[in-house]
Amino acid sequence: MLHAVIMAGGSGTRFWPQSRRDRPKQLLRLAGPRAMIQATCDRLAGWIEPNRTWLVTGAAHADETRLQLPELPRDRLLIEPCGRNTAPCIGLAAIRLLAEDADAVMLVMPADHVIEPPAEFRSAVESAVDVVAREPEALVLFGVPPTYPATGFGYIERGEALAGGEERTFRVESFREKPDYTTAANYQSSGRFLWNCGIFVWRAERILAALEMYEPEMHAQLDALRPAIGTESWTEALAREFPQMNSISIDYAVLERAEGVLVREATFQWDDVGSWRALMRLLGTDDDGNTIDAIHDGLDTRGCIVRSTDAGHLVATLGVQDLIVVHTPDATLVAHKSDEDGLRRLVAEIERQGHERFL
Amino acid sequence: MLHAVIMAGGSGTRFWPQSRRDRPKQLLRLAGPRAMIQATCDRLAGWIEPNRTWLVTGAAHADETRLQLPELPRDRLLIEPCGRNTAPCIGLAAIRLLAEDADAVMLVMPADHVIEPPAEFRSAVESAVDVVAREPEALVLFGVPPTYPATGFGYIERGEALAGGEERTFRVESFREKPDYTTAANYQSSGRFLWNCGIFVWRAERILAALEMYEPEMHAQLDALRPAIGTESWTEALAREFPQMNSISIDYAVLERAEGVLVREATFQWDDVGSWRALMRLLGTDDDGNTIDAIHDGLDTRGCIVRSTDAGHLVATLGVQDLIVVHTPDATLVAHKSDEDGLRRLVAEIERQGHERFL
Repeated sequence: MLHAVIMAGGSGTRFWPQSRRDRPKQLLRLAGPRAMIQATCDRLAGWIEPNRTWLVTGAAHADETRLQLPELPRDRLLIEPCGRNTAPCIGLAAIRLLAEDADAVMLVMPADHVIEPPAEFRSAVESAVDVVAREPEALVLFGVPPTYPATGFGYIERGEALAGGEERTFRVESFREKPDYTTAANYQSSGRFLWNCGIFVWRAERILAALEMYEPEMHAQLDALRPAIGTESWTEALAREFPQMNSISIDYAVLERAEGVLVREATFQWDDVGSWRALMRLLGTDDDGNTIDAIHDGLDTRGCIVRSTDAGHLVATLGVQDLIVVHTPDATLVAHKSDEDGLRRLVAEIERQGHERFL
Repeated sequence: MLHAVIMAGGSGTRFWPQSRRDRPKQLLRLAGPRAMIQATCDRLAGWIEPNRTWLVTGAAHADETRLQLPELPRDRLLIEPCGRNTAPCIGLAAIRLLAEDADAVMLVMPADHVIEPPAEFRSAVESAVDVVAREPEALVLFGVPPTYPATGFGYIERGEALAGGEERTFRVESFREKPDYTTAANYQSSGRFLWNCGIFVWRAERILAALEMYEPEMHAQLDALRPAIGTESWTEALAREFPQMNSISIDYAVLERAEGVLVREATFQWDDVGSWRALMRLLGTDDDGNTIDAIHDGLDTRGCIVRSTDAGHLVATLGVQDLIVVHTPDATLVAHKSDEDGLRRLVAEIERQGHERFL
């Protein structure tokens, strides 16, 4: 049976001031009427039932997550006592769902990406599930054909196409770190490189076996949790074992080391909504190249993103270009679009100045 | 006796969004702990007593003005039923104070300028009063020596120095409209041109005689008001006569036509606080050239004015230069400093878009 595992980590700096420590990106309405995490669950409707949908999030965000997802069974929410990157997160989900379904296949995906259309996503995932049915050792990643020379993603070099008629599935030739711009442009033009979008399909048993091989200590810690599953001591056991686990991504822990790693070309539209600039792609721009989501009046305003989370607040702009203006009731950001990566530095500065109450 | 006449007109566009239609510039704290109109009255303390201080303002702003100036006798507040520029405003004050003091000398000044130090201002005004005592027909303007090639002020060309030892007082040679930049630079370097700062000293009887000569209809309308002074029919009479008066400045109506117009060089510091940029002069700038009056954190931020009227709101800036950012609880402005004159156009656009509630 196919289970969905939704990873809802997220720290909340890249969309400050709309995102905050207690309300990271996946809990925000960024590009539509539904919060990212709601849209992610909506995508599974009529396909993977709530009882086979698992959501892993941090303790600080559990209450809001439950509020936003009333249809999610309470015991399908797995609460990490602290963030430990994706390998422990996926390992945790794997032991939990294996306790109910020894043949479980996992679709692992982040809670805060935009994927369209749902039917195409479903079809692509189902074909990956078919691969796993034929090759039980397969670890399938989704790879997105680059649409621009992105320097912010890891890349997957695809190798030989899979025999057996599975279209668009390839052996992985190599993993590449985030490249510089020239390298990214070469990757794009070569046609052999795909963005690693952090969406995976594999058997739960298989990923645990891989963790046992490459992260034996983590595997032992996960094993130690198994007797507590479904008992009153679960939270206590998790609080004891989880923080000790190696904080490492599944990519480093397993995928870059394992045999049998495959990449399935994403035939769906994908956007990681990695920064405020993504709003321009997702919401589109007006005749002046602006993306406006606020009561707004502007003159000589071009290439700007203007947002207010306060439906009664006017943002007025005059003679400005390429700015990001985000107003919230207690904090306003005015940033140049080109310096958007500086948002992390700015958030650090806000903390350094003793203004944590705005974070 | 010397009377002060404070003109508190002001429409409230140049400091939007802090200024609003119901709270124009003179009622704002822009550059210190006191509102402009309070600072203007403070300047007269120990010199011109409240009973000889007259304040002319619009009906919409009378209540707030009374609140801000509790020491001003109620009958010293003259309330215009509508704005009619400075000539009717000054004429109204003249008839009103002549009813109490037939020899009244008027010091006329706007409510929303910054003048420092008060002692130097007093000394300069007293010397103009001395001139008027010797030359009862004199109409004395104050002229500010240009400190930069301003294109936003009218200029006064000074002529021959006044005989009789009155330092820094000259016959007016000519009035010049707001010049272009090159002309303004020539004016400044010549040393013969002064900014017309809208501060005047003359006998009340003299300015009324001048109005009778150059604006006979206005003079007749003012005359018609005189029997109502101090009676219950004053408000009604004013509502009848005042709106019919010619809306014209005292400069056009009288000063550019009359004989005996003198200019007294301003030996005080003067700033008309004409736009947001004035805050940089008045509040100074930090090492990055920013003028900050808000909880603010910034990175790579230079030459900006950042203000919030909400003491609990953080404004954060990143990678921006030469911006004006003004946050208020219900409206935020982000404007390029160079396009500041566009604020009037922006306010018109806000109205056009049906957003008057923010004006």
